[in-house]
Amino acid sequence: MELADAVLAGDRLALARLLTRIENGDSEGQRGLAGLYPQGGRAHRIGITGPPGTGKSTLVNELAKVLRAGGESVAVVAVDPTSPFSGGAILGDRIRMRDLSGDPGVFIRSMASRGALGGLSRATGEVVEALDGAGFQTILIETVGAGQAEVDIARAAQTTVVVEAPGLGDDIQAIKAGILEIADVLVVNKADLPGAEASLSALRTTLEFAYSAPPASDSAPGIWTPPLLSTVALRGEGVPELAAAIHRHRSYLQESGEGQRRDQRRSQGELEAALRDLLIAQLKQQLPDGHFESALDEVLARRQTPRQAAERLLDPSPA
Amino acid sequence: MELADAVLAGDRLALARLLTRIENGDSEGQRGLAGLYPQGGRAHRIGITGPPGTGKSTLVNELAKVLRAGGESVAVVAVDPTSPFSGGAILGDRIRMRDLSGDPGVFIRSMASRGALGGLSRATGEVVEALDGAGFQTILIETVGAGQAEVDIARAAQTTVVVEAPGLGDDIQAIKAGILEIADVLVVNKADLPGAEASLSALRTTLEFAYSAPPASDSAPGIWTPPLLSTVALRGEGVPELAAAIHRHRSYLQESGEGQRRDQRRSQGELEAALRDLLIAQLKQQLPDGHFESALDEVLARRQTPRQAAERLLDPSPA
Repeated sequence: MELADAVLAGDRLALARLLTRIENGDSEGQRGLAGLYPQGGRAHRIGITGPPGTGKSTLVNELAKVLRAGGESVAVVAVDPTSPFSGGAILGDRIRMRDLSGDPGVFIRSMASRGALGGLSRATGEVVEALDGAGFQTILIETVGAGQAEVDIARAAQTTVVVEAPGLGDDIQAIKAGILEIADVLVVNKADLPGAEASLSALRTTLEFAYSAPPASDSAPGIWTPPLLSTVALRGEGVPELAAAIHRHRSYLQESGEGQRRDQRRSQGELEAALRDLLIAQLKQQLPDGHFESALDEVLARRQTPRQAAERLLDPSPA
Repeated sequence: MELADAVLAGDRLALARLLTRIENGDSEGQRGLAGLYPQGGRAHRIGITGPPGTGKSTLVNELAKVLRAGGESVAVVAVDPTSPFSGGAILGDRIRMRDLSGDPGVFIRSMASRGALGGLSRATGEVVEALDGAGFQTILIETVGAGQAEVDIARAAQTTVVVEAPGLGDDIQAIKAGILEIADVLVVNKADLPGAEASLSALRTTLEFAYSAPPASDSAPGIWTPPLLSTVALRGEGVPELAAAIHRHRSYLQESGEGQRRDQRRSQGELEAALRDLLIAQLKQQLPDGHFESALDEVLARRQTPRQAAERLLDPSPA
C-alpha cells in the first residue's frame, strides 16, 4: 500500500514515517504528499510564536486540550530552528506527550533544522500540508523566536498568535512593529508574574498607535484588530478565551476573503521556492565540470563579487 | 566620482549612501560593491547573537569602545530581522551613538528586513563586504535571536559570540546544542543578576558534554574549545577579557587554517545564493505570459503540489 493511502486509512505510524520522508526531502515523501494534497485545504492552521521563555509550549499544550475538548482533531508541529533534534524525541515533547498521548485525535511532531533537508521552512510547509491532507481539523505550528525564519514559518499559518511574557518586554527591542505586523492575536502569558500589567499596557499603547483604534470587538466589519489577551498557561487560565479569539479570527478570514488571499500568497511563495530549488539543481547538473569551482576561485581571490561570478556563470556568451 | 572611489577616499556620507543602495539591491549598489571588493578580505568579522533581553547592544557598544581604545577601526552592523526600520534611525542606535559618535574610527549601521530587497541575509553579507573593502579592521555584526536567519547572518562572521543572560536559560529550550555549534565564544552577560552562577554552571556542563573536555586554555593546539566568559556590560566588566578571547580566536583561525575554510564556505554560500536569485529572475523573463499563473491555479485547486507544478513549469516537453 502507498504511504498516502495508509495515512488516509488512519495509520499513525505511516503518517510519522511519511513526515520523516518529507523532512528528508526524498521522492517517496514527495509522492506521499502528492497523494494527500488533494484532500487538504480544510484545516485551520494556527502559528504560535514569540521569544524563548514566554511559556509557548505550555500554552500550546493547554490550547490543544481546550480545542480537543471542543471536539476538534489537533496536530501540533513544534518547530525549533536552533535545535539539531527532530522527530519527537526531545525532552520537551516527552513532557507534553504525558498530557496528550493516548488520544487518537492528537498528533505531535517536532521539527528541527538538522532534520530538514532543503530548509526548515520548506519542510515545515510540507509537513503542515501533509497533516492537513491527513484530515486534522486544527494544526498548531509552534516556533521559537520571531526572526525572519520564524516569520516565514508563521506564513504557513492562517492565524498567527504572538506570545509575550512580563519582564521580556521592558527594553527597547521588545515591542516591535514587525511583530505586530504578523500578529492576529496577541497574548501576554505568565500574566500572574509582576510586570504583567506594564507589559499589557505597553502592548495596548503600541496596538492603539498601529491601528489608530482601541483593540475592541466593536471595530468595523471586515477589519481585524488583533485582540490582546492574558493567560496563565500553567493553570489553564485564559486559554478558553484564546481558543475563542482564534475561532473568531477564523470566521473573519472566511467572511472577509482575507483567508483566501493569505492562502494564495502562501501557495505562490511555495511555488516560487520549489522553482528556486529545482533551478539550482538543474544548473548543477548542466554546468561543465570545474566551472562552478573556477567561479568560486574568482570570488575567493576577490577578483569578482559573488554576484559578478554568478552572472558570468549564467552568461552563455564567451567572456 | 564613483561611489566606491569616494568611499575609499574616506567619504562617510558616500559609504552610508552606498550601503543604502546595496540594501535596495540596485545596480549602483552592485557596482560600488564590486569596486570595493578587491580591497576587502582583511577585516575580522565578529558575529554577536543571542536571545532578546541579554543586553547585546550594550555589550557590543562596550566592546567597540575597548577595541577602539586598542587602535582598531570598528564598524558595527546591527541586524534586526523583526524590525521594519533600517538605516540607523531607530531609538537604540541614537542611544548608542551618544557614546561612539564623533569618532571617525567608528561606523554604525542598522539593518532590518524591510530595507533589504532580496533578503536580509544577502544584504547583510554585502554590507559587511562593503565595510571590509572600505577598510574597517573589525566588523561587529549584531543580530537578535538565534533562529535560522540569525545563524545564516552569523555565517557572514568569522568569530561568533553567543550571549546569554541569567534567568533566560532556565527552561528546557534554553541551552541548546544548536547554539553551541555556532558559538566560538560564550558570554553570560548581566552576570551581577541572581542566577548568574546557575546559568554559568549549566553552560559549563553543556560545554563539557559537547567537547568532552573542560573549556580550558590548555587544550590541544589546533582545537578550539569555546571559552565561557561573564560580563556586566553596563559597567564594562569583563569586556576587555571578551576582546582578548576574540583576538585569541582570530589567531586560532589564522594558525589552524580554519579561517580560510570558513571564508571558503561563506563565499560558496554567497555564490550559490546569487545564482538562485539570477536563475529565478531569468525564468520569470523567459516564461510565456500566464504560465506561472496557470501553475499557481493548479496548486490553489490542489490538483498539484507546489513541487509538482514547479517541475511541470520547467519541463520543456508538452504534458
